[in-house]
Amino acid sequence: MTEAERFLAIEEIKQVKARYFRCMDTKDWAGFEAVFAPDASADYTPPGGNSAEWSASGRANIVAFVRRMVEQAITVHHGHMPEVEVTSPTTGHAVFAMEDLIWWPEGARRRTLHGWGHYRETYEKIDGKWQIKTLRMTRLRVEQT
Amino acid sequence: MTEAERFLAIEEIKQVKARYFRCMDTKDWAGFEAVFAPDASADYTPPGGNSAEWSASGRANIVAFVRRMVEQAITVHHGHMPEVEVTSPTTGHAVFAMEDLIWWPEGARRRTLHGWGHYRETYEKIDGKWQIKTLRMTRLRVEQT
Amino acid sequence: MTEAERFLAIEEIKQVKARYFRCMDTKDWAGFEAVFAPDASADYTPPGGNSAEWSASGRANIVAFVRRMVEQAITVHHGHMPEVEVTSPTTGHAVFAMEDLIWWPEGARRRTLHGWGHYRETYEKIDGKWQIKTLRMTRLRVEQT
Repeated sequence: MTEAERFLAIEEIKQVKARYFRCMDTKDWAGFEAVFAPDASADYTPPGGNSAEWSASGRANIVAFVRRMVEQAITVHHGHMPEVEVTSPTTGHAVFAMEDLIWWPEGARRRTLHGWGHYRETYEKIDGKWQIKTLRMTRLRVEQT
Repeated sequence: MTEAERFLAIEEIKQVKARYFRCMDTKDWAGFEAVFAPDASADYTPPGGNSAEWSASGRANIVAFVRRMVEQAITVHHGHMPEVEVTSPTTGHAVFAMEDLIWWPEGARRRTLHGWGHYRETYEKIDGKWQIKTLRMTRLRVEQT
Repeated sequence: MTEAERFLAIEEIKQVKARYFRCMDTKDWAGFEAVFAPDASADYTPPGGNSAEWSASGRANIVAFVRRMVEQAITVHHGHMPEVEVTSPTTGHAVFAMEDLIWWPEGARRRTLHGWGHYRETYEKIDGKWQIKTLRMTRLRVEQT
């Protein structure tokens, strides 16, 4: 890759992750699905959680999992300070720091969540578009009510 | 445009928006004014608000509006996860996720505001400098006291 | 410098600062030390504070200072909206907006800190790696319990 190609890939990966956040928070589920590779996997297991309950494989299952979690809630997800490395013309990995806030509606089992942590991800370029291949969220702290 | 020119434009637009935030929060009003095109327009209308009261046209009017709102307050405005697209050598658009905090002084009509949302903007390069041409803020949630 | 070299430098400086935040919050002290130049200096003096108590010179002293402050605490440090300028092939400076949260353990003299402000930094490229040369933190607001 030339340096220009490498920069383009880094910028595109940052924008894929930006769409991940924006589409989740604006409930644009078609846009959200489009950031994942067809065979992507995502692991949102919190500390002490059962990973079988907090993971999903396959783009459609990831979207279904996230919608079940937050579709009825107001959510804010922010990413920070990307560390993106492009390892080939079609592969890369990234770490993003993150903060998330969730306000569930009246009557829900949970009321609010406020968390901080990191996304640790791999990316793959498929049909000319960078997509999230694997995603793992780790947490520094969570506050819930 | 060459790819290098495109990258430079994306980076410059991000830095214009960084100055927007920093100059507002440090009350550097000359610096704040300089990020806007002379004929810029800004729409900060909150959900359910009257857009005539929350919009301003022309650089000087935008600065006057923002100063009236926050000059006496401590403010923190953070932007996140830019999605910048350059559409020609002199035009572009961007979305930035955002969080804002305002603490008004003792005795003010309002005490605090904590909000989250997005900036949706267009940019224009005038006399060699990228500037904000139109700005519209949309909100995911606001908490006020 | 070519434009490609300049972009690479800007991206590398952003990633150095990303490691600063991530290594502090995950308590990776070897990684944290590696972001500083050997003769770096850091000034974390809060408004009204005594700079002799809140500054450190030399990479090892900076790490010792930060560890004393936050090693027993859960911390979240996020940087935002970088303004990086590369002034030569081996020098640059940057401003990052920031938010920090600290939760000290039970029984500590302090309980929590939540702050907002800016990092104002210079960078130097030494042995092919960009490193923080000087760091000064300024604050917009701090809330403590």
